[in-house]
Amino acid sequence: MSYYWEDIDLGFTETFGPIAVDREEVLAFARRYDPQPFHLDEQAAAQTHFGRLAASGWHTCAMMMGAMVEHWQATPGWQESSLGAMGIDELRWRHPVFPGDTLRGTSELIEKIGSRSRPEMGIVKWRTRLLNQHDGEVLSLVSTVMRKRRPAAQG
Amino acid sequence: MSYYWEDIDLGFTETFGPIAVDREEVLAFARRYDPQPFHLDEQAAAQTHFGRLAASGWHTCAMMMGAMVEHWQATPGWQESSLGAMGIDELRWRHPVFPGDTLRGTSELIEKIGSRSRPEMGIVKWRTRLLNQHDGEVLSLVSTVMRKRRPAAQG
Repeated sequence: MSYYWEDIDLGFTETFGPIAVDREEVLAFARRYDPQPFHLDEQAAAQTHFGRLAASGWHTCAMMMGAMVEHWQATPGWQESSLGAMGIDELRWRHPVFPGDTLRGTSELIEKIGSRSRPEMGIVKWRTRLLNQHDGEVLSLVSTVMRKRRPAAQG
Repeated sequence: MSYYWEDIDLGFTETFGPIAVDREEVLAFARRYDPQPFHLDEQAAAQTHFGRLAASGWHTCAMMMGAMVEHWQATPGWQESSLGAMGIDELRWRHPVFPGDTLRGTSELIEKIGSRSRPEMGIVKWRTRLLNQHDGEVLSLVSTVMRKRRPAAQG
């Protein structure tokens, strides 16, 4: 199986997960990278719109990435044609992520752009959504990534 | 000092950092959240456009957040009027972040939007840039965050 730029079309959809949100990991990430009270303490979180202890939004992104990489590594031919991400747009944290949640995700190919300056690669945009166990959307984003183009057949 | 929505205007700029990028931490983050070879192994990274072992882009975001929260917590009055982030746009990883780098950041207020439906809050957009020790921009993004409005004076 190959996944060059030419091989995947609009509407192509990947799924990834499940992601188990672990309380100790939520706390450890927050202590190091986002030590705001509502990510560290139940009582402080209860006084905010979160209502209870919630994961850092950046931790949710990191957990999503982990599940995506795991999926890619289990998909023969995927990573061979991957050239990495250029950026993210429309990242929205739509609902808090709580310890004990189980998340799963989908990424749908929404745009393909050829590169005139770099004919060996093409650009692909994905819309990724992350849902919790109640089918509530907790995060969505659009990623712009580069993929190798299919090598020309040898003459 | 207070930092209600009314108190900060277009062009208001915060600075944060320095952030020391630690090799062991780069590896630990990648192992858990982004185990792609160029984030785990010098030789694998040497064969990519990174050139050498580079931090996960999500790790860079997490380190940025850590330095921003540290700055906010050292700024009396800042967090009292903060209502959290709605999302991120135009996130671009412009240059690899390497172990041993020292990063620093700026956030400039680029847009203010009042909320008709929620008169107690206002929306603020920041453009954040993260530079390395060579003044190279490694990351930029636009964040959309909510802030409390100044309470009406008691009559």
